[in-house]
Amino acid sequence: MKDVVLVKTLYRHTNEYANKTVKISGWVRTLRASNAFGFIEVNDGSFFKNTQIVFDSAKIENFKEISKLPISSSITVIGTLIETPDSKQPFEIQAENIIIEGMSHSDYPLQKKRHTFEYLRSIAHLRPRSNAFSAVFRVRSVAAYAIHKFFQDKGFVYTHTPIITGSDCEGAGEMFRVTTLDLNNVPKNEDGTISFKEDFFQKDSNLTVSGQLNGECFALAFRNIYTFGPTFRAENSNTARHAAEFWMIEPEISFADLQDNMELAEDMLKYVIKYVMDECPEEMTFFNQFIDKGLLDRLNHIVNSDFGKVSYTEAVKLLQECGKQFEYPVEWGIDLQTEHERYLTEEIYKKPVFVTDYPKDIKAFYMRMNEDGKTVAAMDCLVPGIGEIIGGSQREERLDVLKSRMAELDLNEEDYWWYLELRKYGETKHSGFGLGFERLIMYITGMSNIRDVIPFPRTTGTAEF
Amino acid sequence: MKDVVLVKTLYRHTNEYANKTVKISGWVRTLRASNAFGFIEVNDGSFFKNTQIVFDSAKIENFKEISKLPISSSITVIGTLIETPDSKQPFEIQAENIIIEGMSHSDYPLQKKRHTFEYLRSIAHLRPRSNAFSAVFRVRSVAAYAIHKFFQDKGFVYTHTPIITGSDCEGAGEMFRVTTLDLNNVPKNEDGTISFKEDFFQKDSNLTVSGQLNGECFALAFRNIYTFGPTFRAENSNTARHAAEFWMIEPEISFADLQDNMELAEDMLKYVIKYVMDECPEEMTFFNQFIDKGLLDRLNHIVNSDFGKVSYTEAVKLLQECGKQFEYPVEWGIDLQTEHERYLTEEIYKKPVFVTDYPKDIKAFYMRMNEDGKTVAAMDCLVPGIGEIIGGSQREERLDVLKSRMAELDLNEEDYWWYLELRKYGETKHSGFGLGFERLIMYITGMSNIRDVIPFPRTTGTAEF
Repeated sequence: MKDVVLVKTLYRHTNEYANKTVKISGWVRTLRASNAFGFIEVNDGSFFKNTQIVFDSAKIENFKEISKLPISSSITVIGTLIETPDSKQPFEIQAENIIIEGMSHSDYPLQKKRHTFEYLRSIAHLRPRSNAFSAVFRVRSVAAYAIHKFFQDKGFVYTHTPIITGSDCEGAGEMFRVTTLDLNNVPKNEDGTISFKEDFFQKDSNLTVSGQLNGECFALAFRNIYTFGPTFRAENSNTARHAAEFWMIEPEISFADLQDNMELAEDMLKYVIKYVMDECPEEMTFFNQFIDKGLLDRLNHIVNSDFGKVSYTEAVKLLQECGKQFEYPVEWGIDLQTEHERYLTEEIYKKPVFVTDYPKDIKAFYMRMNEDGKTVAAMDCLVPGIGEIIGGSQREERLDVLKSRMAELDLNEEDYWWYLELRKYGETKHSGFGLGFERLIMYITGMSNIRDVIPFPRTTGTAEF
Repeated sequence: MKDVVLVKTLYRHTNEYANKTVKISGWVRTLRASNAFGFIEVNDGSFFKNTQIVFDSAKIENFKEISKLPISSSITVIGTLIETPDSKQPFEIQAENIIIEGMSHSDYPLQKKRHTFEYLRSIAHLRPRSNAFSAVFRVRSVAAYAIHKFFQDKGFVYTHTPIITGSDCEGAGEMFRVTTLDLNNVPKNEDGTISFKEDFFQKDSNLTVSGQLNGECFALAFRNIYTFGPTFRAENSNTARHAAEFWMIEPEISFADLQDNMELAEDMLKYVIKYVMDECPEEMTFFNQFIDKGLLDRLNHIVNSDFGKVSYTEAVKLLQECGKQFEYPVEWGIDLQTEHERYLTEEIYKKPVFVTDYPKDIKAFYMRMNEDGKTVAAMDCLVPGIGEIIGGSQREERLDVLKSRMAELDLNEEDYWWYLELRKYGETKHSGFGLGFERLIMYITGMSNIRDVIPFPRTTGTAEF
């Protein structure tokens, strides 16, 4: 509809439309009417806030019908925009004509009252029409764009690494098998093992857990690349932080060491947070008010902090000496738990902090061995309120060191022939990290369950919609 | 490395660096040397073109070692940038110091000679270092960003629709099953059917073929949305145009009919093509010279044409009356073949053309029924050189019509309860389309095999790397 104006435009350029006739279309969020007058709050999807429509029985022909419109009916309104500087909203529209596009029903499941997030998950097809989810999913979109913009402005090449894979990148959790075999009649080899010859890819295939190894191939051609795509974990973790399907961002940079890597991670986090705060002020105010009272202070603090840096070995000492009783005792060699991570960033540093140089035994095979022979050039970025948000490392570029590390871990060189060849033909120091996109969105919005930042979440036992 | 300059920066701002000392790092693409002098073409991944390094035995300590560097070794060069206005490249670097970062080997598989694309597919981990694939994958990245920018600038909400799904959106081709069941011992129900109770999602689950139905949920909240993510088809089509895993863009717009939909598709195509031509002039020149001689003319023509529009019924008449003998004879009711599509766009219209209002029997259940009861409000966009590049429709928003259409096609209403509820609670006219991203990249680059525009392609029998 050519002459329709988006509500976002009316909010951002109100004075240009003052006292003019405008036409908007959208969905009824609330409606109340007497015999003479009525008020509708319309949301047109382009903007977080509603627009107030005033309608008058003297002007509106179908006044009675309009007065009884069920919530979520869609309408087109033609009317005069009047500035209302003394009221909560900057303007209202005095309707001259209201056209009903589509009638809703009185049993509409999203009536104007507070619903639990649990209930709203059961109507994932409708929940983006609620305030909270309208805000969450717009922020998700804007944050995704901020990530692309950040990397593209720096000349990084966006790389679509494969979703279906024949290899388990880092043995990170259980994988989903992808198959076209007939499960009623799985073909077997003579020795009783499954025959994948008739499967689509003629081999055992799975959903990817990380695009990193493929990303490294591209980083060693394009210097700086990033991935942004779905990844999968078939872990039976029924927690508020785990989903079976989630999106990851994995930049990979050549001629770059762990310091360069941390600098990139810090710049990226600050950029994305600031971008969302600048572009979605209404949504961020909503979160700060209704979801997480300290949110904006915390995010502003992050944008304005220089992140701390501490080695794992030093961090273990700090935790041992801090006097705090942890559920899991701290000693050198353990994987830090969320309680430790949060204590470090919230109590000791009071700002985001990178922990570096973890024991090799708790990290992946591809991380670069330090000179001590005990630790690897890894880094985790911990942020207040959540703990680890980014994990990365400098990669082992020395072919002999990489091979001996793989042997230690019983990894088959043949499965990684192409990964090893990257070290043979023009190795260079390179680094990268992974950022779980949903965790970032939880962090930016204050939402506490990963199911509430994914449009249609897939978790243990759940693949609805 | 802080003080390293990207080669792209040197090319775009050559005069700012003239006669200054610069430091670059990259990979050796070619090298030739006499006893006194040598020349290296270095590519640093940031830019399509190489940088010529001149090195002199009088200045370079490790002259002999450098002279024998295998192709693809990585080096850091410090030297003076000298403008060379009379030669092919705008500048060269006279080396003062060359540091070897990583030695390659003499058996490097990508020596400087022409390789077939088939061969290069077998070294997908190295092929982005070749000219053609360096150009393809940078264009892929820039085109992906152009799509995000196009939609975000218009306020569209980027929506991550699920990859794993319990429903077959449109019965479009065979699907891949996703499972954690033990294939050696598939659990069965008493009646002999597969028991999915022990499967991760406790139901039969597949990889998505389209995000559209989920996208509609979000369009009816946010008005304008788009998806951009991987989709899957388990079709056994071993052709140059089919991949099992590919990326799709699916915008969905509310309060919008088929005309609005076509306008959006036309604007988007023109925007993305123009953006790539503006941002990647070197790559586009390369494609025009070495891959597809008429490419730039054809793309410029598209950007400057008003796309044609013709109904399916009229198009059938035109094809029947054109005098051309087609392999597949044309009659009303058939699905147009590529030969028909190309004749329409290349010979009759000589520009891109939308064909609209196809017979309902060859289109999906969700397309809006026209008043004639025989055709639906569908549109395909055909472009010269390729045929169909976009398919879309206005969606059936009338609950009763949609239900009776589903009944005709034996679709189970229960499986679509949430999709049907969108029509019950605030229906509005809405439309959308799908663009296969790989097909767009083939179109923009002139590459003729889909395996050569995907970093690590997945096709029948192939899931390597």
